[in-house]
Amino acid sequence: MSEQQLSLDDVYQLAYQCMKANGCNDENAAALAETMTAAERDLCHAHGLFRLPGYATSLKSGKVKGDAVPTIKKVAPAVLQLDAHNGYAPLALKKAVQPLADCAKENGIAAMALIRIHHFAALWMEIEALASMGLAAFAFTAYKPAVAPPGGSKPFFGTNPMAFGWPRTKKPPMVFDQASAAMARGEVMIAARDGKTLPEGVGINKDGQPTTDPNEVLQGAMLTFGGYKGASIALMIELLVGPLIGEHASFEAAKNDNNDGGPPQGGELLIAIDPTKFGHRDNPYQHAERLFDELLSQPGTRLPAERRYRNREKTEKDGVTVPQSLLETIKTLS
Amino acid sequence: MSEQQLSLDDVYQLAYQCMKANGCNDENAAALAETMTAAERDLCHAHGLFRLPGYATSLKSGKVKGDAVPTIKKVAPAVLQLDAHNGYAPLALKKAVQPLADCAKENGIAAMALIRIHHFAALWMEIEALASMGLAAFAFTAYKPAVAPPGGSKPFFGTNPMAFGWPRTKKPPMVFDQASAAMARGEVMIAARDGKTLPEGVGINKDGQPTTDPNEVLQGAMLTFGGYKGASIALMIELLVGPLIGEHASFEAAKNDNNDGGPPQGGELLIAIDPTKFGHRDNPYQHAERLFDELLSQPGTRLPAERRYRNREKTEKDGVTVPQSLLETIKTLS
Repeated sequence: MSEQQLSLDDVYQLAYQCMKANGCNDENAAALAETMTAAERDLCHAHGLFRLPGYATSLKSGKVKGDAVPTIKKVAPAVLQLDAHNGYAPLALKKAVQPLADCAKENGIAAMALIRIHHFAALWMEIEALASMGLAAFAFTAYKPAVAPPGGSKPFFGTNPMAFGWPRTKKPPMVFDQASAAMARGEVMIAARDGKTLPEGVGINKDGQPTTDPNEVLQGAMLTFGGYKGASIALMIELLVGPLIGEHASFEAAKNDNNDGGPPQGGELLIAIDPTKFGHRDNPYQHAERLFDELLSQPGTRLPAERRYRNREKTEKDGVTVPQSLLETIKTLS
Repeated sequence: MSEQQLSLDDVYQLAYQCMKANGCNDENAAALAETMTAAERDLCHAHGLFRLPGYATSLKSGKVKGDAVPTIKKVAPAVLQLDAHNGYAPLALKKAVQPLADCAKENGIAAMALIRIHHFAALWMEIEALASMGLAAFAFTAYKPAVAPPGGSKPFFGTNPMAFGWPRTKKPPMVFDQASAAMARGEVMIAARDGKTLPEGVGINKDGQPTTDPNEVLQGAMLTFGGYKGASIALMIELLVGPLIGEHASFEAAKNDNNDGGPPQGGELLIAIDPTKFGHRDNPYQHAERLFDELLSQPGTRLPAERRYRNREKTEKDGVTVPQSLLETIKTLS
């Protein structure tokens, strides 16, 4: 497969220009380009330039507004609501972080409900931003049904990621960002392409029976990680980003979507917590470092996100490689 | 195994009198008896009268104070701190629920840090109480190390349960309460006793190698549910109930414990959210019912806690059976 070496600046410019060419205003194009560049930088290609055609598609179909201006209001002393007015999530999240951090520092804990967003990236970016401001933070979002509930046979849950972050004193934050699905749908598709079998517990066929055949899983449904416990998390996420904030749960997002290939309208919930507002005199950040030290004293262990941070150090110097075929697709879109 | 049939009132009286005989004041004895009776009622025997000897042990050793009076202060507009003064958790939680609910209804979201508690029961009770007041709620707690981190070979995480609840309109709340450990330690002990093997992924031997032999797991460590994703949840819980609230993480709880068989000093974090304070006009409870209806329209599915609620209907009429051997142990303690 032919590839091209690009600097992170090149990646940004490519994404920015393409989004502008597809109807984004400056602010939206810049936020989208930052999000895709950050994913490429950390070698999370699935959320990088790979997403550009999908972003362009939903701008063209009119489902997503390239000139959307997110608005924020305080709806309770510790709750903010951001209405993205059917824009893409990156600009909304860029606007969300500071007001949410301020509200959390004022109240000790605060929530932000993001509604009418179209989320097509990872959650670790917003969590890293909040944790870099000294806050512990959660993020939740849903999508369209892809994962069956325990005992069921048809997709009901989205892949439903949940992310959590904790600030570190001399290092980038501890952040995890994980789907409730046992495996990413993209990985199942790659296994099907390569004629491989899946581990047990990843999916079921269209009759609801367990299978390790990726083609059968694609016609059936994926399962949650860790069996019914992962399904509890998936259900919690549906409630938090659906009924709680007044947005679509996954099954509703699918019904309302135009299936143009881009992300459906949905919501995201952020919760930020200020560890210095909990009424004790310990330094919570130093306490956490002792916890991390104790954990890492066991050979073979590492903290979530360490691999991404190592990738980042490398790509910030050396740039990234992008498949030629993707670059050509992007050229036709620009 | 010889058993005796007891009404739930009998269970309560037995627990109450035994806790009084072991140095609890009225309030603490009543709260402990209510907690054990609720567990028996839902047929969660592991948190019922089975715990009574352990509760008695730590009262006798002086580690836990039977006359502790929990105190609550507001430490930030949306954060409460409850100091249990080394009492058992049930009285602390009984006192915690109303102020936390009030704070959540005022602010939209609120947290309560419970410190210097000794928690020896399930989390679903406090979550059911909060959800019955119309709130979505999370609970987290740690314990002493029993579960190895991914790549490691020694216990580091506690079994670290997390619970979440959502109010229902005409039914008791949706509540899940699940350990981060792949299996309860008690279940591993029962498998060892019965000469059975464990499923893969449940534990490792003392050299850190995967094993399905329960005796080897008891000398080694358990693993988290769902591999590294469950471990992320376990780590999050350590941070939330340790550094965040200024209490012991699991590895610290073990170092500070007198190992008398009762629960160590630790903390618990509760987060309560008022779904009517999120700035939209939808009825969040009715929206959630549509979500549940859609999920349950798939044959073979059920919601978390449904089994407990069915057990409850039965035992409230018929009472429960208690092993004669346990009743005799309790008699010697009373």
